[in-house]
Amino acid sequence: MKSIGRLNRGCLFAILSLAPCWLWAADTESHSDPVAAVILSMTMIFFFAILGRFLARKVHQPGVLGELLMGVIIGNIGYFAGSQLMIILREGSAIYNIVRDMLGGVPLDLAVGSTVSNMHYAQQLTAALSSDNGTDLLKVAYVADIFSRYGVIFLLFAVGLETSVDELKHTGKESLMVAVLGIVAPIILGYLTALLIMPTFSFKSDVFIAATLCATSVGITARVLKEMKKLHTREAKTILGAAMIDDILGLVILAVVSSIVITGAVNMTATIRIIALAVLFFSAALIIGPWLLKKAVNVFSFLELWESKLVVSFMFMMTLAWLATAVQLASIIGAFAAGVILHDGYFPADKKHKDAVWSIKSLISPLESILAPLFFVLIGIQVKIESFFDLNVLLLASGLIVAAIIGKLVCGLGASKKSDRLLIGIGMIPRGEVGLVFASIGRTLGVLSDKLFSAIILMVMVTTLLAPVLLKACYKRSRHNSQPLS
Amino acid sequence: MKSIGRLNRGCLFAILSLAPCWLWAADTESHSDPVAAVILSMTMIFFFAILGRFLARKVHQPGVLGELLMGVIIGNIGYFAGSQLMIILREGSAIYNIVRDMLGGVPLDLAVGSTVSNMHYAQQLTAALSSDNGTDLLKVAYVADIFSRYGVIFLLFAVGLETSVDELKHTGKESLMVAVLGIVAPIILGYLTALLIMPTFSFKSDVFIAATLCATSVGITARVLKEMKKLHTREAKTILGAAMIDDILGLVILAVVSSIVITGAVNMTATIRIIALAVLFFSAALIIGPWLLKKAVNVFSFLELWESKLVVSFMFMMTLAWLATAVQLASIIGAFAAGVILHDGYFPADKKHKDAVWSIKSLISPLESILAPLFFVLIGIQVKIESFFDLNVLLLASGLIVAAIIGKLVCGLGASKKSDRLLIGIGMIPRGEVGLVFASIGRTLGVLSDKLFSAIILMVMVTTLLAPVLLKACYKRSRHNSQPLS
Repeated sequence: MKSIGRLNRGCLFAILSLAPCWLWAADTESHSDPVAAVILSMTMIFFFAILGRFLARKVHQPGVLGELLMGVIIGNIGYFAGSQLMIILREGSAIYNIVRDMLGGVPLDLAVGSTVSNMHYAQQLTAALSSDNGTDLLKVAYVADIFSRYGVIFLLFAVGLETSVDELKHTGKESLMVAVLGIVAPIILGYLTALLIMPTFSFKSDVFIAATLCATSVGITARVLKEMKKLHTREAKTILGAAMIDDILGLVILAVVSSIVITGAVNMTATIRIIALAVLFFSAALIIGPWLLKKAVNVFSFLELWESKLVVSFMFMMTLAWLATAVQLASIIGAFAAGVILHDGYFPADKKHKDAVWSIKSLISPLESILAPLFFVLIGIQVKIESFFDLNVLLLASGLIVAAIIGKLVCGLGASKKSDRLLIGIGMIPRGEVGLVFASIGRTLGVLSDKLFSAIILMVMVTTLLAPVLLKACYKRSRHNSQPLS
Repeated sequence: MKSIGRLNRGCLFAILSLAPCWLWAADTESHSDPVAAVILSMTMIFFFAILGRFLARKVHQPGVLGELLMGVIIGNIGYFAGSQLMIILREGSAIYNIVRDMLGGVPLDLAVGSTVSNMHYAQQLTAALSSDNGTDLLKVAYVADIFSRYGVIFLLFAVGLETSVDELKHTGKESLMVAVLGIVAPIILGYLTALLIMPTFSFKSDVFIAATLCATSVGITARVLKEMKKLHTREAKTILGAAMIDDILGLVILAVVSSIVITGAVNMTATIRIIALAVLFFSAALIIGPWLLKKAVNVFSFLELWESKLVVSFMFMMTLAWLATAVQLASIIGAFAAGVILHDGYFPADKKHKDAVWSIKSLISPLESILAPLFFVLIGIQVKIESFFDLNVLLLASGLIVAAIIGKLVCGLGASKKSDRLLIGIGMIPRGEVGLVFASIGRTLGVLSDKLFSAIILMVMVTTLLAPVLLKACYKRSRHNSQPLS
């Protein structure tokens, strides 16, 4: 044990001294193989994710927190050390808007300028993209973004696999109450906070801030719960159910708010349409899904059992993920629904291996384990430490953070008295990638100023970073109070 | 059995009628979720790959041939039906050059024009990229290219896993002879063919054509052999060994030829440097690799056994793949070397599952099964049927194809009399992705004209399509002659 500890320390040192080499290599890559730069960056990000997970476990924190913080550390150290890769990665999916503008005929510097409003960042980004290495950096940014999104899809599918519709029925009403309260409370609090701290903001901005506060990212909480092996507790079911409902409700709110911003009035047709589509999606998935799966299992029976399981699971998950986006929901909702519907019972039993080793879970796990950590590190990389140095941003962010936390804590009151209400409230706190999507849409619509955007990102980050810590603390506190369903 | 047949036909019909919907959807995608377009296209390409594999097996052909031909079919039907996605995908990694030029300040149409020399294609590509949907199409092209390259890396790693250094020693000398003959013969034949059919070409062009002919793609042959469960035969070992040596020698030739083209004279320093690096890489991998693996297994022991196996395998594979590119070799060489070195013996035995179910192979299989088919479909999509309609191209291509086939068949003579020499020669025929890389580099260097490029691509395609058929036929013929080693 002691020798492993020493070995670990030695390796840790070796690793940390390797980091500068990586950043240097990522910035000077010019191999003929187009995948070289991608391999280097993705593997290193993955490596730091594992390192973060390791360090977090050393201090008895959930691994996801380690991955997030490792992202913050390498993102900011890399950025201030002048890493071009970090300059690009910390802008997240802004790269898509830049390329969109460039394809529309806008020169690079203007395209960057219209997406990245901070002059300093824009100049750095333009310099990085127009450097010899720009093509590779752009490629890495694209792939990192897509890989991490696939990671979240696999993660939510895996979470869905561990959830059954029958169990959701137990907490369905509770989840709904929690979700509705978790939408209403943050909207009111967020609107009031924006009005109080920044009275000069327009009505549109206030409404959009309020909407952003009601997002819930089930990804973070789900991962923490999964790592703590708490997915089967009553509270976890309520949180996951509520987060799912919240995502739907949140996106309805987003659609409504977007139409307010664009048209200047509440668009009833759009509201009804998006609600109808969401209901249709879930009903269709639950009714047609099982029928389709039985057919698919038959059709793909020409493959070996393990391959047929993999192919059917992958295609079913991706189809639902895509269909979800087709009805204006997030792709992860579809992946989650696919996981809920799918189970090993659809496939013939494996006579060779009576052990459930070729289970769907074991086949999807490698994909999830490689890709999901990328998502959390990338969120971390996008946290700009220097944002904290502006007093205005700090004040606004503090207000939003308080509103965001209280708004979601309140929603725990929607749960029955049998549940740990505080725990449920905490589980709903992280805004994660959903909050970031909201913020980026607000930015695209031009309704969120630079400072407001920074403040919201800060709020998203703090709530996302805070939730795992609080969840863990809360579970520790209530170890004897929590009532598992099973 | 009959009912499954009817079910299959019904599903096939449903699927084929879905294809137009897909192409339409891929061209009109405009969801807010940035991953939506990617999910749609990747899943459909994957789906067609599986369909191709299914149809190929129905007519008792290797699945990879079905995937390739399915790519040709959907690529060309899609293109002539006006699919913007296919317009972009059939240009392969040309998209990188276009984006590189745009980042350098070149407007879209000029950037496309300088990469895609055919005016008609260039206009279509410009129109597609500057359409509303251009950003999504570009994203899909990027991701498809990178996914398929990862697929080949996983594939070659899996092939490497089934190869052991000890067994390579048995056929080492034979492989070397085959590889050297497989370089020398195509170079001489290719040079003479170019000189005879197109006497107006420059010396540089002739040399480059000759160099392109000596490429060998182990990917196609390896997959065919793997599917036919022939990886353990003496001939398979010789082919894989020779292809590995060929890749190295081929890249040395490429480096030499490139320097001839650029400087106008043979650059001895560059030649020596690249040879030294290749030798260094393999020696280092074989010596340091096992030591590094033992350390890594210790360090990652904080993870569960399956996760530690996955993480160590993935990182080792990716590290070697990247290091290979760092010394100017192809990434797949590194992945292959990683597979050769790695085996389950490095990890502690799983006490819970005595069955070798959490083997490295079973953990990497899901990644390979999802990504490798993409590679073959994408190669297929890049085959432009209309290239066959130009008599000049046809003549030149025919000459090159004959030279390419004879050149590699000859190399079978390097094998011992105990082996099936014809089989080995056939196994060396496919140029695959290596040939495409060569051709694209030649194009970048400006040494391959449009027609020459088309002819070479045709040669690559025909040799790649032909090899599996011939291999299969040859194995059928010599079923009783082949001598397995084990």
